[in-house]
Amino acid sequence: MTKANLQLLSLNQITTENWSLSEAIQGCARHDIHWISIWRHKLEKIGVKEARKLLTEYGVQVSSLCRGGMFPAATERERQQRIDDNKRAIEDAKTLGTDVLVLVCGPAPDKNIKQARHWVEAGIEAILPYAEELGVKLGIEPLHPMYAADRSVINTLGQANALTECLQSDHLGVVADAFHIWWDPELEQQIARAKGKLLGFHVSDWKVPMRDMFKGRAMMGDGVIDLRAMRGMVEEAGYHGPIEVEIINQEIWDQPGDDVLHQMKQCYQAHV
Amino acid sequence: MTKANLQLLSLNQITTENWSLSEAIQGCARHDIHWISIWRHKLEKIGVKEARKLLTEYGVQVSSLCRGGMFPAATERERQQRIDDNKRAIEDAKTLGTDVLVLVCGPAPDKNIKQARHWVEAGIEAILPYAEELGVKLGIEPLHPMYAADRSVINTLGQANALTECLQSDHLGVVADAFHIWWDPELEQQIARAKGKLLGFHVSDWKVPMRDMFKGRAMMGDGVIDLRAMRGMVEEAGYHGPIEVEIINQEIWDQPGDDVLHQMKQCYQAHV
Repeated sequence: MTKANLQLLSLNQITTENWSLSEAIQGCARHDIHWISIWRHKLEKIGVKEARKLLTEYGVQVSSLCRGGMFPAATERERQQRIDDNKRAIEDAKTLGTDVLVLVCGPAPDKNIKQARHWVEAGIEAILPYAEELGVKLGIEPLHPMYAADRSVINTLGQANALTECLQSDHLGVVADAFHIWWDPELEQQIARAKGKLLGFHVSDWKVPMRDMFKGRAMMGDGVIDLRAMRGMVEEAGYHGPIEVEIINQEIWDQPGDDVLHQMKQCYQAHV
Repeated sequence: MTKANLQLLSLNQITTENWSLSEAIQGCARHDIHWISIWRHKLEKIGVKEARKLLTEYGVQVSSLCRGGMFPAATERERQQRIDDNKRAIEDAKTLGTDVLVLVCGPAPDKNIKQARHWVEAGIEAILPYAEELGVKLGIEPLHPMYAADRSVINTLGQANALTECLQSDHLGVVADAFHIWWDPELEQQIARAKGKLLGFHVSDWKVPMRDMFKGRAMMGDGVIDLRAMRGMVEEAGYHGPIEVEIINQEIWDQPGDDVLHQMKQCYQAHV
């Protein structure tokens, strides 16, 4: 299989967590990276209008905004607050000019994971009309089952696909992140099932031993995931959009951002 | 739902890793625990005959032997060695008088997880006639997807069920370990699908934050798993055998074994 198209490489800004959004946008421009995925905790610091200005100035496009979601909560009132927050995220996504708001759906507030999964469905249903109105697409990103207790009760591409099939909208799809789904015995079938619904493809790697369950992601090529094969599946399912490099790793964060971007481009070409 | 039957409580010996097998058997007798699951690295130190003698002397029965499996390997020769080792494990299980050899199926030697899964199937197929001959049952235990890279490529009860349906034998079934499968969106369906094929039920808990991916299991009740509900599913699927407490946790290992057994009995009654 051929190498991935360098024009599609996107810096998911968590990969350079020590950079501000302004630094990350300028870093992309300096390294000829055309896309960036923006995180809201970074966006808040400069505001969405300033961010938009910088993006235009440096000619960088936004592949996605990360993140909406976090729907389950113990009380009705809290769940409503989450929905309101998701609506603000949809507005920010529109202002930034990105198609996609990534949904990290959230953990259960108690031992009832089944109930939490229903709340996720209800939450997406509640925000979907607003996303449609503003022309922003919602991308359900299943997280690895090891995050089922503290980050998301949506843990397989199968679940995410079932949600899109149930809620039926041109503005609802799924995001395939290699780190979260590589182990899935149904990987090929579920990527194929997502045909026409894939809104993103994220890459990093799974390296053994993993010393930190949250900050343990590795640079592409350093682990066990056959990223190129997975890109083939994703393209076969009709996805030809930006490919985000999303690496949550303290050691990588501690390196100078320019070094990380340089290495990331090389590894993207060698392994994706 | 009623409490679990205390007569079915089994000490999976990894829970008291600092104890020798002899100490663990005597500990069970002292705490009126009728069952033990034996690990091979402990068994090797005293030999299977001495173990059998102690079990008889103290009136403790063996719920399972842990473990066979580890089928995938880079070369044909290594794969054959693994099969030979599994046959020795089957012999040990028979000598110990247990019905069940637990299979931890093993990781891929490379990036090809699909190939490794085929080797697992071939490996089980290769040892199954010997298990049938000796009257030992093989229990395929799916491990959590976070162990897909380093411990087992069988990561869901769905996969384990598919293997038993494919290989069809009275001597092949599955083992349900709460820690490994609690997150599965198909949990209820897959436990029901295993009806008549369940060879074991293991309990511990999933506590956040988990500081060590291997030694991070918690005491029942300290985490997010609804163990009583899961026991209900397992009983509904016809399993009424021993319930093993299997906790891999350095802090628990560092406590005196008698304290652990005391606590384990209490937590079993309160939460399982």
